[in-house]
Amino acid sequence: MKKIINSADSVVYDMLKGLLDSNPDKLAGVLEKRIIYRKDPYLNKVAIISGSGSGHEPDQAFYVGKGMLDAACAGPVFAAPTLDAIVDAAKIVDRGRGVLFLVKNYTGDRANFEMASEMLQFEGGPSVETVIINDDVAVKDSTFTAGRRGVAGAIFVYKIVGAKSEEAGVNLKSLKELAIQVNENVRSMGFALKSCTTPAKGSPTFDLGPDEIELGVGLHGEPGRERIKVLPANEIISIITNAVIEDLPFVENDEVALMINGLGGTPIGELYIAAGIVHDILKYKKIKVFKTYVNNFCTSLDMEGCSVSLLKLNEEFKKLLLSPVDIPIKYF
Amino acid sequence: MKKIINSADSVVYDMLKGLLDSNPDKLAGVLEKRIIYRKDPYLNKVAIISGSGSGHEPDQAFYVGKGMLDAACAGPVFAAPTLDAIVDAAKIVDRGRGVLFLVKNYTGDRANFEMASEMLQFEGGPSVETVIINDDVAVKDSTFTAGRRGVAGAIFVYKIVGAKSEEAGVNLKSLKELAIQVNENVRSMGFALKSCTTPAKGSPTFDLGPDEIELGVGLHGEPGRERIKVLPANEIISIITNAVIEDLPFVENDEVALMINGLGGTPIGELYIAAGIVHDILKYKKIKVFKTYVNNFCTSLDMEGCSVSLLKLNEEFKKLLLSPVDIPIKYF
Repeated sequence: MKKIINSADSVVYDMLKGLLDSNPDKLAGVLEKRIIYRKDPYLNKVAIISGSGSGHEPDQAFYVGKGMLDAACAGPVFAAPTLDAIVDAAKIVDRGRGVLFLVKNYTGDRANFEMASEMLQFEGGPSVETVIINDDVAVKDSTFTAGRRGVAGAIFVYKIVGAKSEEAGVNLKSLKELAIQVNENVRSMGFALKSCTTPAKGSPTFDLGPDEIELGVGLHGEPGRERIKVLPANEIISIITNAVIEDLPFVENDEVALMINGLGGTPIGELYIAAGIVHDILKYKKIKVFKTYVNNFCTSLDMEGCSVSLLKLNEEFKKLLLSPVDIPIKYF
Repeated sequence: MKKIINSADSVVYDMLKGLLDSNPDKLAGVLEKRIIYRKDPYLNKVAIISGSGSGHEPDQAFYVGKGMLDAACAGPVFAAPTLDAIVDAAKIVDRGRGVLFLVKNYTGDRANFEMASEMLQFEGGPSVETVIINDDVAVKDSTFTAGRRGVAGAIFVYKIVGAKSEEAGVNLKSLKELAIQVNENVRSMGFALKSCTTPAKGSPTFDLGPDEIELGVGLHGEPGRERIKVLPANEIISIITNAVIEDLPFVENDEVALMINGLGGTPIGELYIAAGIVHDILKYKKIKVFKTYVNNFCTSLDMEGCSVSLLKLNEEFKKLLLSPVDIPIKYF
């Protein structure tokens, strides 16, 4: 294993330290608990928190900032954040208007966020609501989940709900309903060309032959729908895009946001090849693309491959997608 | 070789098509010549063009937009853009105020940009000036260059010169001088953990043993200073950061912009581990970081590793770094 790390034990701490060092004016954190939160003063808004195992960067700590998340709770690599970190984060970012937990559907994450919610209720702490995100159409259940997994579609939930939370007077209940509505309208599916290597294990999480791809892979390398022989981009992107389209289903005259999400080790150029193919499919099906998002949004360490997400839009979603963010992951 | 491509021949075309499909309101292009240019109307400014072989995305086509480049000329993977594409791009984006070519120091790129400049002069076309960028401190000459290579420091040149070019009344000569000034104040060095695989060759460009790293690697996998055994992040990042600091040299009380540039296949989390280490070194040396840039800015396909760039700042550089851009590579 060759990585830019000091040790498997320090990898999450060192990464979050680098994040704080690089954003001293905007972010604060409790590094020993792997909590990152907004430093800029904000008042009178519902706080938005997400969290999951590390290894999916920029998801989630790199989305903490104005217009998106108010705090992120990182776990160890591919393991849920701790109960007490979630409780602490909620207390730190609550401004008396309550806290919304946005949680991708993995058993460990759900359990710890649910326990944190109960503990906060027991302590008379901030009001909490939780929305589970489950946009992955690949499989019904997986190694890590009962039901569908939450994958890159979660980013659309954070973006839209985070934007709305900045508007005056928006309450916890309406933000929860908005999050549910976004989740109900987003679908995703991905594939892996190459497995990822966790720092602790030091070898690939699963084995793929030199001519194989894992179709419908999960964010931790969980098996997908099937393992197939490698295909040209046109064919593999068509398979996953059509699976996404048919699931909601997305139909003629729908307007959508399109996300091509790299899994961590795939160059941006290849993601744009995928984007061009999806645009051709959507044009043929008369589904209108409002905006295209191409980047590494929700990754699996150094896994190679990508996912395609579609979000069916309404006027409010469009307005909220376009509102500005101020988050650490950026170019300039 | 497993990549999200249709064929080695179509990879650049398909990528640039995806870029145009994803940005229909802002970008136009001549795909058969691999030219991408700004579609938004802009008047009365000097045009900024860069170009090089493909495989370094987002460099350069993904930096075309307000506040940065007005056009980019992409070559085939790791090969210079053609003479006639450069000439055509200059004619497309010129608004009567002249064109500045920003060219990283590689023999093929220099030759074609210089010939294009001569041809435009011969034809009585737009006035052209060229600035060669050579920020890499690793080696004096390389397989692809006489003199130092141009690497990720080029992005600071595009950003600062592009921002300045949007100001009223700025002429070609002053932009050329500004580009030279940025280049003189930026230094970079990188290392590879893993080679890259070009679509045409289908196998790694160079071989690295399972415990080796290439220190001072070039953007095309050219050999660097030396091949060494793999080291913890603290040590390898210290070696390259100190090489960068000592070269200018950067000294106590200098104010700098710091860029941690991923080479394409390294996850963002590892880049932030590197960022934290560089911050510690700079703090110890009393060099003040004005702003930190961490992302994949100038890559080598799927190469794993990163580079560290430092730019010594003055008040004008700081102002221009902070001015907004509207370019296709982004998150939201």
